[in-house]
Amino acid sequence: MTVDASVTGREWLVEAFGCDAGRLTSVPALQRLFDAAVLDLGLNPVGAAVWHQFPTPGGITGLWLLAESHLTVHTFPEFGSACVNLFCCTPRRAWEWDARLAELLGATEVRVRSVERAYGGIIAPAIAGARA
Amino acid sequence: MTVDASVTGREWLVEAFGCDAGRLTSVPALQRLFDAAVLDLGLNPVGAAVWHQFPTPGGITGLWLLAESHLTVHTFPEFGSACVNLFCCTPRRAWEWDARLAELLGATEVRVRSVERAYGGIIAPAIAGARA
Repeated sequence: MTVDASVTGREWLVEAFGCDAGRLTSVPALQRLFDAAVLDLGLNPVGAAVWHQFPTPGGITGLWLLAESHLTVHTFPEFGSACVNLFCCTPRRAWEWDARLAELLGATEVRVRSVERAYGGIIAPAIAGARA
Repeated sequence: MTVDASVTGREWLVEAFGCDAGRLTSVPALQRLFDAAVLDLGLNPVGAAVWHQFPTPGGITGLWLLAESHLTVHTFPEFGSACVNLFCCTPRRAWEWDARLAELLGATEVRVRSVERAYGGIIAPAIAGARA
C-alpha cells in the first residue's frame, strides 16, 4: 500500500505528570487548558466541549470537537497525571506543551509524542511507480 | 524522568483507506461503526456520541466519551479515508480493525498503530534506582 503522504495531519499525544490534583478534578481548570490551546493555536471549536467527572478518586474526561479534528483530556488525580490528545488534520505549529501544562496544570514533567496521520488516500500502483 | 509503566493504557491510531464515500458521509453508518466497537470490546459509553457533519465535500467528525477513555472518527470522503482513535486507559484486546473496517466502511486498506500511554506517575529517583 502506498498512501498519499502529501495530505497529512498531525496528532500530539501528551502525558503530563506531577500535576496539581485540585486542577485535575476541576472542569473549569481543564476548560482553561482547552481555551488556552484553542487561543494560542488559532483552533476552531464546533460547539461546546463535553465533560464528564468520574466518581472519586476518578478524574475528568473532556472532548472538544474542532474544525481541525479534536482535543481531548483524561485526568488521573490519583497519579497526578493527565493524557492529552490534539489532532489537527492540517499542518499547524506545535504548542509549547511543557510550559503551558506546567502553568495550567502544575505539571513537573511532560512527555510529548507527535504522530503523522496521512489520510490522503491510496496512490494507485502505476502512479506510485511513476513517483518512485 | 522515570514513569511508572505498570499503569499503562493503550491507544489505537487507525487510518482506513478505500472506503465507501456514502458511508463516510452518513452519521448512522458511523454510529454503527462505534456501536460495533463498543459491543465487540465491551466498552462503556458515557452519554451519546457527539456528531458534526461538515459542509460538502467535508466529512463527519464523531467523538464518544467512554468510561475507558474515548473513541473518535474523522472521515474524508474526498479521499475515501477515515481516521479512528480508540483510547483505553486499562488493558484491552485489539479489535479486528482490518476486518471490521472493511465490513463497516468498505475499507480496502487499513493502517493500525498501537501506542502505549503510561499515566501512572513518576517514580521517585531512589525508587527508580532500586528497580533498575
